[in-house]
Amino acid sequence: MNVLVMGAGQLARMMALAGAPLNLKVTAYDVNSAKVQHPVTGEIYPLTLEQAVAAADVVSSEFEHIPYPVQAVCEASGKFRPNSTAIKAGGDRRQEKALLDQAGVANAAYRVVQTESEFYAALEQLGLPLVLKSALAGYDGKGQWRLKQQADAAAVWADIAAFMAGAEHSLPQAIVAEQFVRFDREVSLVGARNAQGETVVYPLTENHHVNGVLTVSQALPSNEALQAQAKQMFDAVANQLSYVGVLALEFFQVGDQLLVNEIAPRVHNSGHWTQQGADTCQFENHLRAVCGLPLGSTALVRPTVMVNILGEDYVDPAVLSLPSCHLHWYGKGKRPGRKMGHINLCGDTPAQLAERFLALSTLLPEAGFPEVADVAKTLASKV
Amino acid sequence: MNVLVMGAGQLARMMALAGAPLNLKVTAYDVNSAKVQHPVTGEIYPLTLEQAVAAADVVSSEFEHIPYPVQAVCEASGKFRPNSTAIKAGGDRRQEKALLDQAGVANAAYRVVQTESEFYAALEQLGLPLVLKSALAGYDGKGQWRLKQQADAAAVWADIAAFMAGAEHSLPQAIVAEQFVRFDREVSLVGARNAQGETVVYPLTENHHVNGVLTVSQALPSNEALQAQAKQMFDAVANQLSYVGVLALEFFQVGDQLLVNEIAPRVHNSGHWTQQGADTCQFENHLRAVCGLPLGSTALVRPTVMVNILGEDYVDPAVLSLPSCHLHWYGKGKRPGRKMGHINLCGDTPAQLAERFLALSTLLPEAGFPEVADVAKTLASKV
Repeated sequence: MNVLVMGAGQLARMMALAGAPLNLKVTAYDVNSAKVQHPVTGEIYPLTLEQAVAAADVVSSEFEHIPYPVQAVCEASGKFRPNSTAIKAGGDRRQEKALLDQAGVANAAYRVVQTESEFYAALEQLGLPLVLKSALAGYDGKGQWRLKQQADAAAVWADIAAFMAGAEHSLPQAIVAEQFVRFDREVSLVGARNAQGETVVYPLTENHHVNGVLTVSQALPSNEALQAQAKQMFDAVANQLSYVGVLALEFFQVGDQLLVNEIAPRVHNSGHWTQQGADTCQFENHLRAVCGLPLGSTALVRPTVMVNILGEDYVDPAVLSLPSCHLHWYGKGKRPGRKMGHINLCGDTPAQLAERFLALSTLLPEAGFPEVADVAKTLASKV
Repeated sequence: MNVLVMGAGQLARMMALAGAPLNLKVTAYDVNSAKVQHPVTGEIYPLTLEQAVAAADVVSSEFEHIPYPVQAVCEASGKFRPNSTAIKAGGDRRQEKALLDQAGVANAAYRVVQTESEFYAALEQLGLPLVLKSALAGYDGKGQWRLKQQADAAAVWADIAAFMAGAEHSLPQAIVAEQFVRFDREVSLVGARNAQGETVVYPLTENHHVNGVLTVSQALPSNEALQAQAKQMFDAVANQLSYVGVLALEFFQVGDQLLVNEIAPRVHNSGHWTQQGADTCQFENHLRAVCGLPLGSTALVRPTVMVNILGEDYVDPAVLSLPSCHLHWYGKGKRPGRKMGHINLCGDTPAQLAERFLALSTLLPEAGFPEVADVAKTLASKV
């Protein structure tokens, strides 16, 4: 089968690598260059979007910020999985919050803000601190503000107003103001739903962010109640969207309660550990779901952590001497802060993994691996 | 790094898939078509062999029957790993047997036969039964004879003489006559040696053949003495060859003694289980070795079996519903008996694997999976 993926980044690349053994041929449409290409080799195929969609058995996506006209072409083909409603909910904070409410899953109280008076009304109704996020193209910490005290309100609004005025979007921009959640930790759930409505989910993953960018993900030891709570919310959102493919839910955990922070209608960075740590990786399961193949087992094989490589195109080769240490480069050009690759590390036991993670962290300089050493130490102190 | 592989079959394909995450770009030279191509996508690169060799950082191989003039080009570049001596030993039974003797590893007594008188001399010196193998291009059961009783000698020799006369080889053909070994089972050891002389080996694998073609491989539970014996022989052969890359040794096991049957100077079908069952798969370890990266851990992650798909381009998709069941298609055109793909199946325990293997075997028709159901039943009866 031929699968055309909107977006030609690392997620499409890893789908192509996971699909080849199943004879699933993945090509990618780069929405910026409007070129159809192979996401691993870079080979360019002389096809228009329409031709590539026509030639594909399935059309899918690696990201949510696909221009609406492109989505329309995909949707019209009748082979776009997940569907455009899901992609749009992932790409527009307004639609995302409305979806979460419709699905009946807990999420932070919010108001949509477009004007100064709406801004101050939101402040009054939701209280402080307040988190403000641009509805469109908010990503990895960009287009986000925090308002901690009333005295800063005017300055924050001025910033937001300037951002809204400068936003280059064909769609009307807005801000979603949310009550700040004093969370204990950030976790996420990656799972898959097929066209028959069956769902499978991976173990919950604990995520560590620095400046809004994921640095470390760790598959969590079994916690049945929390896993069941997350699974219920996953099913509610996925069913609400008639979703087909891999979907990720990011949560704030407060005590033993989860609130959905955001959804990603695609394979997700916090699911990269599944390449080494789970029976079937998220890339294969996404392809299985969208191609109508049976969903694969999501069972944890071994305790695993994933460490992002940010803005660096070199890692000490000594990391490859560590048992169960796997490098995944994305073949991208170096840029500060850019996601260049990741490292998956496994252990037979949580204690062995913690020990290996400490050893790994000593080989990773702080610049490309912010706070990774701290996370490794914290993990080691817990086992 | 750019790695050029001689041969564009499934082994080069799986190297390319294993190399991409390490930013190792694998291209393949098809010795039949004399074309340089991508072993996964089939993209053709307009390069001659010489140009491709010049452009590569490392030149390697996926098979041993590389024409000598092609090997000469590779060897002259100074970047051919493993070296031409090793490739030739794998491709010529005479050189292989001489190598085994030089390395001092146990193997069946033999004579090289080119004439009728040498044939009868070998018969007298080695006794019956006798196994006769063509020195060149003996592969997967082709070009092999068994002589069980004296009365059949003339007929077998007539067959061999006709084969030798019809052989299309630029090199002088011959037959290697060997004492038949009454083995208890066939096992193999896959391992890697780097340029510094360090070696790592995977757990011994038990192999089941039908008509000389591998059908099932199973990573064996730890047997320290046998593993040490095999490792000693691996080191002896690999060191004798100043070998760099993955090397496979096939053994006859007689009681608790191993005799080397043959070597394969490449990644090997009996090592395909390492894709799901070992810390680092054989394809990645081959690339690590030839590219000068640290060798990866060869530890068993979970009990695993590998089942070959022979001559079939369809498998019941229900196999993907089995936990830990992974399909690996090679993207090849269907031909009777051809290796079209394989299935890797894991379990958390030997008993769980045996149970899953029984379930899998009921989904695999006898035609494409000869004797697989029997092997599954035997395995289940042992745990």
